[in-house]
Amino acid sequence: MATDNPSFVLRGVEDVVYEERPVPEIKEDEVLVAVHYLVHGRIADFVVEKPMRNQVGSNVKNLKVGDKVAMEPGATCRNCEACKAGRYNLCTDIVFAATPPYDGTLGRFYRLPADLAYPLPENVTLEDGAMMEPLAVGVHSVSNLGGFRASRSIAVFGCGPVGLLCMAVAKAIGASRIIAVDIVPARLEFAKSYAATDTYLPPKFEEGETRIDYSRRNANLMKEKLGIEDRGKNGIDLVIDASGAEVSIQTGFYIVKSGGTFVQACPNPNVTFKVGMGNPHVTLDLGQLMTKELNYKGSFRYGPGDYPLAISFVAQGKIDLKPLVTHRYKFEDAVAAFKATRTGKSEDGKGVIKAIISGPGAEE
Amino acid sequence: MATDNPSFVLRGVEDVVYEERPVPEIKEDEVLVAVHYLVHGRIADFVVEKPMRNQVGSNVKNLKVGDKVAMEPGATCRNCEACKAGRYNLCTDIVFAATPPYDGTLGRFYRLPADLAYPLPENVTLEDGAMMEPLAVGVHSVSNLGGFRASRSIAVFGCGPVGLLCMAVAKAIGASRIIAVDIVPARLEFAKSYAATDTYLPPKFEEGETRIDYSRRNANLMKEKLGIEDRGKNGIDLVIDASGAEVSIQTGFYIVKSGGTFVQACPNPNVTFKVGMGNPHVTLDLGQLMTKELNYKGSFRYGPGDYPLAISFVAQGKIDLKPLVTHRYKFEDAVAAFKATRTGKSEDGKGVIKAIISGPGAEE
Amino acid sequence: MATDNPSFVLRGVEDVVYEERPVPEIKEDEVLVAVHYLVHGRIADFVVEKPMRNQVGSNVKNLKVGDKVAMEPGATCRNCEACKAGRYNLCTDIVFAATPPYDGTLGRFYRLPADLAYPLPENVTLEDGAMMEPLAVGVHSVSNLGGFRASRSIAVFGCGPVGLLCMAVAKAIGASRIIAVDIVPARLEFAKSYAATDTYLPPKFEEGETRIDYSRRNANLMKEKLGIEDRGKNGIDLVIDASGAEVSIQTGFYIVKSGGTFVQACPNPNVTFKVGMGNPHVTLDLGQLMTKELNYKGSFRYGPGDYPLAISFVAQGKIDLKPLVTHRYKFEDAVAAFKATRTGKSEDGKGVIKAIISGPGAEE
Amino acid sequence: MATDNPSFVLRGVEDVVYEERPVPEIKEDEVLVAVHYLVHGRIADFVVEKPMRNQVGSNVKNLKVGDKVAMEPGATCRNCEACKAGRYNLCTDIVFAATPPYDGTLGRFYRLPADLAYPLPENVTLEDGAMMEPLAVGVHSVSNLGGFRASRSIAVFGCGPVGLLCMAVAKAIGASRIIAVDIVPARLEFAKSYAATDTYLPPKFEEGETRIDYSRRNANLMKEKLGIEDRGKNGIDLVIDASGAEVSIQTGFYIVKSGGTFVQACPNPNVTFKVGMGNPHVTLDLGQLMTKELNYKGSFRYGPGDYPLAISFVAQGKIDLKPLVTHRYKFEDAVAAFKATRTGKSEDGKGVIKAIISGPGAEE
Repeated sequence: MATDNPSFVLRGVEDVVYEERPVPEIKEDEVLVAVHYLVHGRIADFVVEKPMRNQVGSNVKNLKVGDKVAMEPGATCRNCEACKAGRYNLCTDIVFAATPPYDGTLGRFYRLPADLAYPLPENVTLEDGAMMEPLAVGVHSVSNLGGFRASRSIAVFGCGPVGLLCMAVAKAIGASRIIAVDIVPARLEFAKSYAATDTYLPPKFEEGETRIDYSRRNANLMKEKLGIEDRGKNGIDLVIDASGAEVSIQTGFYIVKSGGTFVQACPNPNVTFKVGMGNPHVTLDLGQLMTKELNYKGSFRYGPGDYPLAISFVAQGKIDLKPLVTHRYKFEDAVAAFKATRTGKSEDGKGVIKAIISGPGAEE
Repeated sequence: MATDNPSFVLRGVEDVVYEERPVPEIKEDEVLVAVHYLVHGRIADFVVEKPMRNQVGSNVKNLKVGDKVAMEPGATCRNCEACKAGRYNLCTDIVFAATPPYDGTLGRFYRLPADLAYPLPENVTLEDGAMMEPLAVGVHSVSNLGGFRASRSIAVFGCGPVGLLCMAVAKAIGASRIIAVDIVPARLEFAKSYAATDTYLPPKFEEGETRIDYSRRNANLMKEKLGIEDRGKNGIDLVIDASGAEVSIQTGFYIVKSGGTFVQACPNPNVTFKVGMGNPHVTLDLGQLMTKELNYKGSFRYGPGDYPLAISFVAQGKIDLKPLVTHRYKFEDAVAAFKATRTGKSEDGKGVIKAIISGPGAEE
Repeated sequence: MATDNPSFVLRGVEDVVYEERPVPEIKEDEVLVAVHYLVHGRIADFVVEKPMRNQVGSNVKNLKVGDKVAMEPGATCRNCEACKAGRYNLCTDIVFAATPPYDGTLGRFYRLPADLAYPLPENVTLEDGAMMEPLAVGVHSVSNLGGFRASRSIAVFGCGPVGLLCMAVAKAIGASRIIAVDIVPARLEFAKSYAATDTYLPPKFEEGETRIDYSRRNANLMKEKLGIEDRGKNGIDLVIDASGAEVSIQTGFYIVKSGGTFVQACPNPNVTFKVGMGNPHVTLDLGQLMTKELNYKGSFRYGPGDYPLAISFVAQGKIDLKPLVTHRYKFEDAVAAFKATRTGKSEDGKGVIKAIISGPGAEE
Repeated sequence: MATDNPSFVLRGVEDVVYEERPVPEIKEDEVLVAVHYLVHGRIADFVVEKPMRNQVGSNVKNLKVGDKVAMEPGATCRNCEACKAGRYNLCTDIVFAATPPYDGTLGRFYRLPADLAYPLPENVTLEDGAMMEPLAVGVHSVSNLGGFRASRSIAVFGCGPVGLLCMAVAKAIGASRIIAVDIVPARLEFAKSYAATDTYLPPKFEEGETRIDYSRRNANLMKEKLGIEDRGKNGIDLVIDASGAEVSIQTGFYIVKSGGTFVQACPNPNVTFKVGMGNPHVTLDLGQLMTKELNYKGSFRYGPGDYPLAISFVAQGKIDLKPLVTHRYKFEDAVAAFKATRTGKSEDGKGVIKAIISGPGAEE
């Protein structure tokens, strides 16, 4: 068994240990990939975002040695009701692509089922490939669940990586209007330069104001400033919340058009919902839900067709991922990268959108 | 102008005045109907629930004098985006069927567009017809928005008229399991005798328990007692909330299956959302929405096909509306009827589900 | 290796050889089932229709030794675009459940992936289980592709097993009207006794009449006789062709309502489309397709949820499969059974709908 | 009554009479429009294609005098099942926008319901507006019925106006590949310059070859030449037939991917289906329909949202209609225009795609 697989093992928040791990053995329908880049947009999710060159199992037909790939993390059971019905992201037997112990290992080599390694076209770089995982989150929310179509309008709350990539997808689909909402003016500026057609900076809370009162006032201001109406062509067809902030979600209910759709994206699934560093309880005005017959949908990871569409958008030049990669780290500086993305700040003083770590496989 | 149209005019909660009103003049595509029965399940909604014999405009082809009809209230503009796209319940120019001042008048005669007067088959009584409006609410929530299909499972929170009729629709569609939830044991008993396969009585609050903690505990108890699972054939495909109670909605989020649908019915639209006698702000656990990719849909009135399906279910004997009519009043006792349905209690001491008022037209 | 596996090997039409085959070895996620019954409704499709008691692999959780099961034939690759998108019936790497050489073997034991062995509830017999495969074809056509809902109307062309089971599904779903069409009066009588609400016997061809002219005339007669209209509540919402006859398909285009759906079922996939004993070229009137905006859908096998729904309908007593099993054969008389179902006639002179063969495993 | 309304009255194919007609009186929810341009792409359909300046009824809110508009022909009844369910193109009481006798009149002024007069943005010309009707046909087929989404592939058979506009819509939506098919090389060249990414010129018939044999051979050649596969990313997601030619439709069945959609557009509804100058009977290989589970949909006119999307695409610069207007005629030369478009040839020797006639209202 080969052992030349230098790996970081994540044992907790910024508690990382360097170990030599064996090179995984692959099965006939798996591939072994060398890790070139990692993206760490938030704690603990790096395992799934990386493009690689692969070694191929005997039954693998779609890949050959040397192909650049983007890897979809999360090998599902393929046998349960959800997997068979085309909703594999709801499979509970999901195994995150890595060698055992499956999770929290950042090494030179990974093995994964061949159908989860998507070949990258010539004009898509390995660094682009490293960004396909968060882009697939945007594709899932906007295209798949949101059913977004050309010439419709969208408002996205939150200009972090997920929100920006939702806007990028909306732009690639041909939105007539893309409204970015955030409380940080610099992030709005970036959103405007990147994909948004309009931006909106919410006002401050007034003393004694409840959140729901604030949100209603905020929505009214937003409607007035941007000419948003409750129906017709000036209505907002789709709202995406990628902020997780209660007032954003509340405001979204007030601005989405009658009969519209609201997709609740997962700005940071690991933190918020698994590690528990947040409280996803939100108070909503159900009068809006009912009288406008809204469709409020939760979004979780990505499903069939999301990776291919993400790759296709980049290959066709409809989405440019490069502006989102603000920082690059070497493998041995992974801890600094994790810290930078967690805090949103790096030692250079520039805001961090996405930080990419060179994988140990990149040196070969 | 004929004036023989004795009418009640509703001026406020239980403030009713008796007046002589002119008999309305009809247009070529309208019909004039004589009111035989009225249903008053909650304050101020009586205008729309009545079967009638009609007088027909010159262009009307689907009806002739003497036909029994059920009337769909709410003449929509037919020209706006919502009307043309098949979602006329979202039209904002809706005019409730009545002569001017359109609303709050309860008389012997009404005029309405002919396509909103649905002929009743022989075996459907006028009293059944009077119940088609609330039944259409159930059809809209369960069949249209909920997309409910044969052999699926449903849980309905709230055993008032809307909840019971949602169960009736689920039964007519061929549900494998219909779980009724209410805090009043007698209502659960009735639900079981009427349409439910299972009932569930939530526990009492514990001291110091928050609503969301209570709801999670409640959901766990309910799952254990009824063998409900998060996925697979023991999962709940569709949850309907017809209670408007926060803990019901919260509990619904915890018990609906992964990938499932939750429809928020309007237990009493006038009270809660128009007259403002309620606070539809509800605190929800969005972790459930996201990780299970729920589809949380607001339901508002009824749309294309809902009345015909309601009538069809009754005509085929799949839904029996008679058990729901617990009280009958004469026209001149309308105020007593209103009070009984508002309080849920009548002078005979029996619980009120639906009270029907004989219209003045019934005497002719 | 155990060898006690008496098997028939199908080498061609009614060319069957008896052989001893090894008992298959199962993998950790497979089960081994003993064959109790086989159904042979048409040549070469017997491999997939059988209920069994199973032996279970180490990873199998949904089954235990002794469970009665219905087996879904056709293990798909689970990795391709179709499999992952919830349309596994379109997978091209489908392997029919059997030991190698996969196809055409009729033995005592079979191995198959555990998720394709559906446990049968107490009140479903093994003989019912043997009929789940053709019933799943009906479920797929009527419920899944046809989107059929309660209180809608359907016309089914062809009263063979597939057509009858489509009617049974429509009845279980709660059709308002089920029209059976066939050229054999006895089959119409059976359809009426089994599931149809109306029957229609097409007229003879007139001399010199083209097929399309005949079909238009036939449709007009059918409309007149049965009160079918092109739209509204007397329209036919769904047409299923389960005959494969050109004039049936043509007639179906003329009688389906404007905006309706037409599902082309596969009356006999092996014969018509694989073995090539038929010509599926049909001349259609596209004027009907366009001006009525029809949706003409091909149906192929069954997909996610079809087996569970089939089993559920039988378990709930909504579908009775017993009347369709007209003939029963012993294992060693399989050739006679094949002949009877191919010709539709048996030595007893009674028409054959479905003939069931006792599997060699039934004797244990 | 004003009488200054010089009009052509169409009495038959190229049998046109010039008459003075009264200026129509409008109702409160109607507008009167002055005709500036007419488009005549095929005989008898000119009535519905024109942009106008309007006079407004007392209830009209969306328009004011002087607004440029595109007119959607076909005022539907708004009361029938189809109208109310969002499929108004299937309404049988459609009245083509014009004064009585409704049809075949080409005058200076028209009245129509205000919601059918769509205001044109500043950057959309009246000549563009005149092209919105055929563009809406393309929107309906590709976006609405075809459900076409960004980064998918399409093949369009027939490079006449409807086919070209289908390609334009596919391009506006963001197709990854647009394959144009026609038997005239010059039309393929134009399609390539206009919207297609690939073109395909079918081969000649071989002696003794049946149409279906030819089509299968044609499909194989097309697949080979263009690298089309039956599934996966090299499959064709959507086929549109805008030719009406039997071999095109047959070939389309063979090249569309498994699980794909085939929309039958109406290349010339008046000619083919009303006036009867064609035989829409087509022989199809249903083996393809079934084994690939195709969805073959007829397309008829346009429905809710089609005009707005058409206008939006042009306003956003995603579709350029100018290259399609190859010929311009004065009002008094209408007969020459009709002839040119019917024959596809004009006196200048250049191929006619669309010929626009200046309306008499343009001179005011």
